Amino acid sequence: MISFEEIIIIDKSLRIPVFMQITNSIIHNIRSGLLKSGLKLPGSRELASTLKIHRKTLQTAYDELMAQGWVEIIPRKGTFIVRDLPEIKPAKIPFSQQLKRYPDGTAFSIDEKRIPLYPSSNSTAPGSLILDDGLPDIRLAPTEYLLKEYKSLSNLSAFRKYYGYGGPRGTAYLLETLSVFLSETRGLLISEKNILITRGAQMGFYLAARLLLKPGDNVIVGEPGYFAANITFRNEGAHINRVPVDEFGIDVDIIESLCKKKEIKLLYVIPHHNYPTTVTLIPERRLRLLELAARYKFAIIEDDYDYDFQYNCSPVLPMASLDQHGNTIYIGTLTKTLVPAIRMGFVVAPENYINAISNLRRALDWQGDSMMEVAIAQIYKNGTIERHIKKAVKLYRERRDYFCTQLKEKIDKHITFKIPDGGMAVWTKFNDIDLKMVAEKALKKGLMMNDGSLFNNGNKNYNSARLGFASLNLDEQNKAIEIIKESIQ
Amino acid sequence: MISFEEIIIIDKSLRIPVFMQITNSIIHNIRSGLLKSGLKLPGSRELASTLKIHRKTLQTAYDELMAQGWVEIIPRKGTFIVRDLPEIKPAKIPFSQQLKRYPDGTAFSIDEKRIPLYPSSNSTAPGSLILDDGLPDIRLAPTEYLLKEYKSLSNLSAFRKYYGYGGPRGTAYLLETLSVFLSETRGLLISEKNILITRGAQMGFYLAARLLLKPGDNVIVGEPGYFAANITFRNEGAHINRVPVDEFGIDVDIIESLCKKKEIKLLYVIPHHNYPTTVTLIPERRLRLLELAARYKFAIIEDDYDYDFQYNCSPVLPMASLDQHGNTIYIGTLTKTLVPAIRMGFVVAPENYINAISNLRRALDWQGDSMMEVAIAQIYKNGTIERHIKKAVKLYRERRDYFCTQLKEKIDKHITFKIPDGGMAVWTKFNDIDLKMVAEKALKKGLMMNDGSLFNNGNKNYNSARLGFASLNLDEQNKAIEIIKESIQ
Repeated sequence: MISFEEIIIIDKSLRIPVFMQITNSIIHNIRSGLLKSGLKLPGSRELASTLKIHRKTLQTAYDELMAQGWVEIIPRKGTFIVRDLPEIKPAKIPFSQQLKRYPDGTAFSIDEKRIPLYPSSNSTAPGSLILDDGLPDIRLAPTEYLLKEYKSLSNLSAFRKYYGYGGPRGTAYLLETLSVFLSETRGLLISEKNILITRGAQMGFYLAARLLLKPGDNVIVGEPGYFAANITFRNEGAHINRVPVDEFGIDVDIIESLCKKKEIKLLYVIPHHNYPTTVTLIPERRLRLLELAARYKFAIIEDDYDYDFQYNCSPVLPMASLDQHGNTIYIGTLTKTLVPAIRMGFVVAPENYINAISNLRRALDWQGDSMMEVAIAQIYKNGTIERHIKKAVKLYRERRDYFCTQLKEKIDKHITFKIPDGGMAVWTKFNDIDLKMVAEKALKKGLMMNDGSLFNNGNKNYNSARLGFASLNLDEQNKAIEIIKESIQ
Repeated sequence: MISFEEIIIIDKSLRIPVFMQITNSIIHNIRSGLLKSGLKLPGSRELASTLKIHRKTLQTAYDELMAQGWVEIIPRKGTFIVRDLPEIKPAKIPFSQQLKRYPDGTAFSIDEKRIPLYPSSNSTAPGSLILDDGLPDIRLAPTEYLLKEYKSLSNLSAFRKYYGYGGPRGTAYLLETLSVFLSETRGLLISEKNILITRGAQMGFYLAARLLLKPGDNVIVGEPGYFAANITFRNEGAHINRVPVDEFGIDVDIIESLCKKKEIKLLYVIPHHNYPTTVTLIPERRLRLLELAARYKFAIIEDDYDYDFQYNCSPVLPMASLDQHGNTIYIGTLTKTLVPAIRMGFVVAPENYINAISNLRRALDWQGDSMMEVAIAQIYKNGTIERHIKKAVKLYRERRDYFCTQLKEKIDKHITFKIPDGGMAVWTKFNDIDLKMVAEKALKKGLMMNDGSLFNNGNKNYNSARLGFASLNLDEQNKAIEIIKESIQ
């Protein structure tokens, strides 16, 4: 004889209504095999009183069970659990645990090889000062303008059309705004047909890798290089060819000799400020790269993630603006200009490529956030973004200069670095001391800094770190460098 | 003798500064081969006067060219184009067009087979009434509350931490909020370790397909079924096994016989309201499906995209809440509850699966929009979402009832349909007339409706459409059905 009192656990503190708790309990017990097909349930009046609840509540639960097809009412007989349930062996675990229980692991197998491995981001010790590897200062972010724009747009009925579903390439308004902006400021003489709005630069890499790479294909990247891009290509089964980056950028002679040896499918390059070393690719090599790409018919991903942040002269025009053959896939991002938390980037390429990746993008996440895209188009049009960039560049230039001066004054003899033309970090080689040790000591003293392991490759240890100057004000820079100094002793 | 007047085109109406226009013109002409390495540029005073600009402007352009490494100053000789540029054959096209020219197509080849083909969405004739295939009424969307929340959060300095980079699974705050919400309302007794925040349901399908499927793997889907899911699986090279869906949901007997014949990797099912036919999978079949999955060790994607919209009884608990073995990947979305334009969904599954797809997700777009995620968590916590759902369900129930009554009264003899228990559309079979023809006629009369081709498969023509009742008020419903009626004659 089953005691329904034990079976049906009611917790009035839960948000879920009592009648649903009863329904769920009974379903779980049918599932567990405790309540068999054909079993007669107690009359609602009787059970209600044992459970000390109102009869109506129980009746609702029974109606619910019937509506869901778990029980049937046989006239003048009562309520029964439907007969055509499969026989189920009673589960071993007692009800109380069972309701709480959720499977710990999958019953189907997962092929570990298909999971890309990313370096675990070091957990931030709360309250500690963070010397990042080159991020913008979120305290400057024009999010207030953006959200004001966003909010006020949402009150316009004309804005409603952006609430619904849209195309995978982005809202026409942002595409048009961006194509004009890029034509006028980056020498990219394109139409909106040449753009896809992505979610940050990463989606741009991924779409290129998925579309262009098959297992075994050869990809060329810089060494040292950008780990996230490398992982993306490797994850498609591509073979990564690492070409040294010197003070003039990636070594084009070596690239040429590689092209003669094997078919190159894709080249990934950051001409403006190479990651991690921050060097700028010189014009002569840019032109030769374009020539090689045209001759050997490979695609160039030009990652221009921090185009806006150039301090010695105005930004160098993208290679894409010189490409007359259609080898360049130009990838930009707004995450550095706005905030990383708003994922917004773009791909510029010939129309057939844009059409192809637009279809691929459907599969990833169907479309972008139309409403946010329109809001961003607005702050382009009304000049907010340009004003913000001007302001940021001015400030970051000061911070770069101050930071480099401090490095020289305080720890010069332990490190080697070049003042970067742009970007947000100083590529700093530690000469005589182990960087890992420095980072560990620094953390104890309340400074989080990268230990450079991210940039090492196999047994190649650069013992170098990207020290981000942009996100720290002068006072914070002082503190940071002081701690590094102490950590070196 | 080169006339720099012709080469350098200055358009003061452009946003790009004049000195940059000059810089770009000269770079483009070096590239085009018109200006050769070693060529001496005219003195700045001389050229400035020919161009009728201030000498300072020209000097800035020359400085820019030097900073970018295109020209060099040889003391007491003048400014020269650097010598170590590669020889370039002059381009055939005249300068004026050349500056405008952007490559029409890629110089590298694109494998058409890698591009998923999506049905082109029929272009909306402006001003026409739209009878969609089951979308929410965006006029009800609680976006105003959401954006108010978002905006006010952004003023809190505590909110700033969400501006930066975060994990791929979503912000802890939303994960925790959602895990409690789902435990309390959907019988999913999970922790935040069992959730990944995605961008709509589509990303959930994609991640499952990428992680679990290899070319040739067998996937089971319902027939008729959801085209976007099918495309996602097919795009990974999987073999699609179509199992008929009858009035009780997908046919489990056929699934069992398939399991006996071949190894099934993945089953895609929409138990709550099957797409497109809107039927609910009966409990008995749900349990058998779970048994089969456990026995044959395949994964079930349970797509529960419109859980919230159930009109006859409260929502049926997800199959995932009954799964004791860990076969179910439960996928939900907020796009139907909020607005499609804000891409937000979730995957609920055992921890090892969530960890695996979290790494995959890194590759797609790195992370979600942390700020928006927090704003959404807020409107969960403060009850806005529940209030909205209550309100919407009440209204959509009325709209469903009215819509079905009108269908009966006005065009009953031409169609067959069942009143759906939930969802936002009526699966309507047109008996004697060609649906395509009806849709075409209707469009001429100012009504956009789907012509059912989306649901046909090969030569199987259902001559049926999903008629969405939720997004139209009663007045609009009348208009729509009137036009359908006229289009049938």
